[in-house]
Amino acid sequence: MSITTKQAARAIELAAAKAQEIKVPVNIVVLDTGGHLKHFVRMDGALLGSIDIAMQKAKTSMLFRMNSESVGEFLRPEAAAYGLENTNNGLVGFAGGRPIFSNDEIVGYIGVSGGAVPQDLLIAVEGCRI
Amino acid sequence: MSITTKQAARAIELAAAKAQEIKVPVNIVVLDTGGHLKHFVRMDGALLGSIDIAMQKAKTSMLFRMNSESVGEFLRPEAAAYGLENTNNGLVGFAGGRPIFSNDEIVGYIGVSGGAVPQDLLIAVEGCRI
Amino acid sequence: MSITTKQAARAIELAAAKAQEIKVPVNIVVLDTGGHLKHFVRMDGALLGSIDIAMQKAKTSMLFRMNSESVGEFLRPEAAAYGLENTNNGLVGFAGGRPIFSNDEIVGYIGVSGGAVPQDLLIAVEGCRI
Amino acid sequence: MSITTKQAARAIELAAAKAQEIKVPVNIVVLDTGGHLKHFVRMDGALLGSIDIAMQKAKTSMLFRMNSESVGEFLRPEAAAYGLENTNNGLVGFAGGRPIFSNDEIVGYIGVSGGAVPQDLLIAVEGCRI
Repeated sequence: MSITTKQAARAIELAAAKAQEIKVPVNIVVLDTGGHLKHFVRMDGALLGSIDIAMQKAKTSMLFRMNSESVGEFLRPEAAAYGLENTNNGLVGFAGGRPIFSNDEIVGYIGVSGGAVPQDLLIAVEGCRI
Repeated sequence: MSITTKQAARAIELAAAKAQEIKVPVNIVVLDTGGHLKHFVRMDGALLGSIDIAMQKAKTSMLFRMNSESVGEFLRPEAAAYGLENTNNGLVGFAGGRPIFSNDEIVGYIGVSGGAVPQDLLIAVEGCRI
Repeated sequence: MSITTKQAARAIELAAAKAQEIKVPVNIVVLDTGGHLKHFVRMDGALLGSIDIAMQKAKTSMLFRMNSESVGEFLRPEAAAYGLENTNNGLVGFAGGRPIFSNDEIVGYIGVSGGAVPQDLLIAVEGCRI
Repeated sequence: MSITTKQAARAIELAAAKAQEIKVPVNIVVLDTGGHLKHFVRMDGALLGSIDIAMQKAKTSMLFRMNSESVGEFLRPEAAAYGLENTNNGLVGFAGGRPIFSNDEIVGYIGVSGGAVPQDLLIAVEGCRI
């Protein structure tokens, strides 16, 4: 099962509400399990450079079916996985990209960018409560 | 003035309602006046290939501040503007991309793809009634 | 010899004066003989989509050391040069790109876009009178 | 408000005067607030490789509405934002890209490259005194 229009809208709504609560304008993207764009919102005032970062976080999460910061563990210099960050037209290894579950199954991926990393994470986690 | 989060959501809502009414699942994109992504929705069942077509229609409209089908007039073989379609990383010259006006000023651009061209047009026109 | 900063600025100045005279806001680009950007001006009100068209016209002229519309002769369907328009990351075969001469030698290339093709041509010709 | 032809020309003029004073030939680019090219000058003798560096500095500044060296803080290995430098088709995190203000509002962005980084910075700062 891949995420529905209604589920994606709900994820965006939850994430945006948290972003407004903590007063951080962000870009929020939802991809389906194939990595294709399903829903996207740029909140007023969000940085233009964060559009692509949000996309790349969600994409990275989708490619490895894990949180973007978990992929980041393999991107650390100590991991010695030379060039890994350049595969797949670029990977992003910090928090804000996560799988969205429904009935214990991954149905899509969320990516959030625009605030400090812990803020992006907080907002992304909230978006996954669909 | 560039389009607000609220205006973009309203444009998507109006377009999606028309798409549901005529039973055509589409991709709907809203760009700001600089061409940066503001809001995107893919309705359940919409073709994946239409994601990019919707994006390119909106982009083409933005680049020339006119409807995408008006740009298409310059892309007809008779216009002899050889290679024009390859500029700007590709132009799309059929209906579904249009400027969104507010108070007689362009505030953004909509792009719709997924149905037959007249259906995409109908949905895009509806999305501009913000 | 390749075009100097002073010569390029003069070409832009002459072209822009003509554009203002005929009231057509355009994008004007000057490349050196190696095709590298030397000078660029976007006049207020010029279409964003014409930035790349101006660039591509000048590039096409540079690649074949002739006017862009002369390259266009080879891009006509009758020329049967299948795929030619896709070489060099895209060629543009209509007027507005031309070599700039100094002492009977090509020193650079101008590209103009934003108006109707005959207007772009008129402006480009003026820019070559350095 | 986005930068005017006249303001952009003034920014280039100021920056180029400083570059000549300190005898460093540079590339100078001015973008509007949406990141679209407004004005560009390559001074005689400036390195060809610095054309794109100047462009990327200005782009990076535009994307995050801050100086390019401030974006660089997030690109340091200690920041552990793995892959950030690959987003947005590449970011540049050293000095020479800056917002241009007019009446306490950002109207555009300047990017300078060709000299040592402190020289590029000095020239960019001067270009912002419009």
